[in-house]
Amino acid sequence: MRFPERLAADAALCEARLLRALEDRADQPVTHAMRYALRGGKRLRAFLVLEGARLHGVPEARALSAAAAVEALHAYSLVHDDLPAMDDDDLRRGQPTVHVKWDEATAVLAGDALQTLAFELLTDPALGSAEVRVALVAGLAKASGIDGMVLGQALDIAAETAGRSLTLEEITALQAGKTGALISFAAEAGAVIAGADPAPLRRYAAALGLAFQIADDILDVTGDEAVTGKRVGKDADAGKATFVSLLGLEGARVRAADLVREAEAALAGYGNGTANLIAAARFVIARDN
Amino acid sequence: MRFPERLAADAALCEARLLRALEDRADQPVTHAMRYALRGGKRLRAFLVLEGARLHGVPEARALSAAAAVEALHAYSLVHDDLPAMDDDDLRRGQPTVHVKWDEATAVLAGDALQTLAFELLTDPALGSAEVRVALVAGLAKASGIDGMVLGQALDIAAETAGRSLTLEEITALQAGKTGALISFAAEAGAVIAGADPAPLRRYAAALGLAFQIADDILDVTGDEAVTGKRVGKDADAGKATFVSLLGLEGARVRAADLVREAEAALAGYGNGTANLIAAARFVIARDN
Repeated sequence: MRFPERLAADAALCEARLLRALEDRADQPVTHAMRYALRGGKRLRAFLVLEGARLHGVPEARALSAAAAVEALHAYSLVHDDLPAMDDDDLRRGQPTVHVKWDEATAVLAGDALQTLAFELLTDPALGSAEVRVALVAGLAKASGIDGMVLGQALDIAAETAGRSLTLEEITALQAGKTGALISFAAEAGAVIAGADPAPLRRYAAALGLAFQIADDILDVTGDEAVTGKRVGKDADAGKATFVSLLGLEGARVRAADLVREAEAALAGYGNGTANLIAAARFVIARDN
Repeated sequence: MRFPERLAADAALCEARLLRALEDRADQPVTHAMRYALRGGKRLRAFLVLEGARLHGVPEARALSAAAAVEALHAYSLVHDDLPAMDDDDLRRGQPTVHVKWDEATAVLAGDALQTLAFELLTDPALGSAEVRVALVAGLAKASGIDGMVLGQALDIAAETAGRSLTLEEITALQAGKTGALISFAAEAGAVIAGADPAPLRRYAAALGLAFQIADDILDVTGDEAVTGKRVGKDADAGKATFVSLLGLEGARVRAADLVREAEAALAGYGNGTANLIAAARFVIARDN
């Protein structure tokens, strides 16, 4: 299956797994808000989990709960990131954000419970031995907590009040936490499940994650709100340093293309079976949303 | 060691473990806020983990990361519960709440990262086999997510807009989620670590947790803010149904005392070694903060 079809197929598998995880839960606004927050999106992280698994001969059904866990974790981070006290966004994937559609309290709780759900999903026996599942829990915690995603978000907030623009090095560190750590966890999860060395996929993901963020910054300047499904121009409006403000639009494009080549090079040792991971890296900088 | 000394000793052990978990983390406001949120408190949940472990012959050092995990999870719930969009509290354990001392964004992130830390702590190899650790992760997720603590909080929010007072049955279900589920997880963790049947401790904790909440409602009416360290009278001010409004002050006291006897009875099968758990149940309804 070629990349666009594979991405869509993996997204559908992941969505079904997430909805199944929320079956038979209390009929409360917070449960509805959780389902709402889990809908849509490209589900690139789920694809990375499942493709990394396929690369190691692990069937999708065995890795699916890890893919769903990463998407649940990502969804929680978006719900909380959109809160008025954080980025204050009212539009996400072309729809009202959770605190707009419900209220702030429901958004706080839905985000909290989505994080819990992510760790719950990683205890699914389908993922393999208890050793594998504990390794996944430890990996997701490291990627998403104060050493990873939350650190990136904290650096982002600190940057807004720093009274000066970030350097390229600082912005790279910020993004390595904010988006990179979770993308790396997703790319490595298949190797963890297979008991294989995740180092090459970690190098692939580091380059992919940074390329992804540079592409986001480019879209914030060149994108169309109707296509991206979120507010554009907001970083420039806020006077924030971005890869585009630091490198220029053309410089950012060149850097992103270099990173895609780095990502491809990291996969060289696997031989066949990496076509879709390579296509994903190219997609990341070519997407319009 | 008798109960008051044991509670204090366990609190000190747990605090040291939590501070160790936050060593060598980024020097960011969110990290400082996490440490701040983890300070103080009775640490009854940590005591329950460690006492349940001792009851099964498990040394404290082996159970300590589970005790710390429960307290980290509890701390996250308090930080988010205190947010303006939730309970809007400015005082906690006699100190400004996190969003007052820092800001709302830092409080959201610190709470998020404290939840992550809780799951990270449960991957500590000191806790035992991978099977034990996965069981603890699954148990904490069930206790704290949309089936447990968050459900209780959601029911609490729904009650505020229901246009009618809750019944005794509804308030009991609400509290079983909001405070009971995590207390049960704490009481059962030692049995899980030992590979023993947690059912008697679950019955003990169900009674203890409800007694705890009834005592909280009594303190909200009779307590002194300088002693409780939090705002009192707020439930009555808000016109919320509580165990006191439903049962009367004397009826609530009688019910709490009955529950303490139920908690004691649940421990009958263990023979010796339950004196401190019994003392804890009595303490829960005798405390003044």
